[in-house]
Amino acid sequence: MQPIQSVLETIIYSSDLPAVHAFYRDVLGLSPLGDPSQLAAGFRVSDTHVLLVFNPEVSRQPGRDVPSHGPTGAGHIAFRIQPDDFDAWQSRLTEHGVEIEQVHSWEQGGRSIYCRDPAGNSVELIDTDIWPDNRANRPS
Amino acid sequence: MQPIQSVLETIIYSSDLPAVHAFYRDVLGLSPLGDPSQLAAGFRVSDTHVLLVFNPEVSRQPGRDVPSHGPTGAGHIAFRIQPDDFDAWQSRLTEHGVEIEQVHSWEQGGRSIYCRDPAGNSVELIDTDIWPDNRANRPS
Repeated sequence: MQPIQSVLETIIYSSDLPAVHAFYRDVLGLSPLGDPSQLAAGFRVSDTHVLLVFNPEVSRQPGRDVPSHGPTGAGHIAFRIQPDDFDAWQSRLTEHGVEIEQVHSWEQGGRSIYCRDPAGNSVELIDTDIWPDNRANRPS
Repeated sequence: MQPIQSVLETIIYSSDLPAVHAFYRDVLGLSPLGDPSQLAAGFRVSDTHVLLVFNPEVSRQPGRDVPSHGPTGAGHIAFRIQPDDFDAWQSRLTEHGVEIEQVHSWEQGGRSIYCRDPAGNSVELIDTDIWPDNRANRPS
């Protein structure tokens, strides 16, 4: 039995899918999985990974084809950017009228830019993998 | 300026971090980033990606070092598994006392196992990437 190798779907939520669709496509430059539906907007972020944004007012309804979910309140996601592009990302956000909530320097090295998507989710652009590289210690 | 290449941090939430820590470590076999704190439990899922589980009662407090977030209600995450391991994953969940909420076959091919983590988040184990491979269409 192979271990889990990846997260295929990362999920955040917004009750205004056209607004978040425009934000993640036009401001962050993600590649949409088509147009948003009433249920969700999607983006491919890597060869093995998609970001799905669900409307929680739809996805939390019972009796769907698949199990329901749909929290209320601000979530969080962090995207990896190149260190050389740190200043350019700040400029890009500002040019799109997106307020930079905070710039944070990590003790272990690396920096993050924080802003909010149109749903109020905390979006982080981080230039370093600040977490322990412990793949070798994976339990069986 | 390089496009965003990956999600570094995927976030879900639980007010009982020891319980979710045990679930993702022992049942799903993810590699913990140390012991859970009062704020969060973390796991490395690939060389470029971590899963963080925040206690929303802590992470939503204002005045933290970084911007606050913390929704209420069930979220969702999907992990990629190998097709050959589909039956073994069902057995593994059952052996750990985890109820299988649904098994779903996708029209485009591929199957998913759905269960809930101890916080009620909808956890999907999917054996195929069912999404369009549109990396080449990434907008600038």
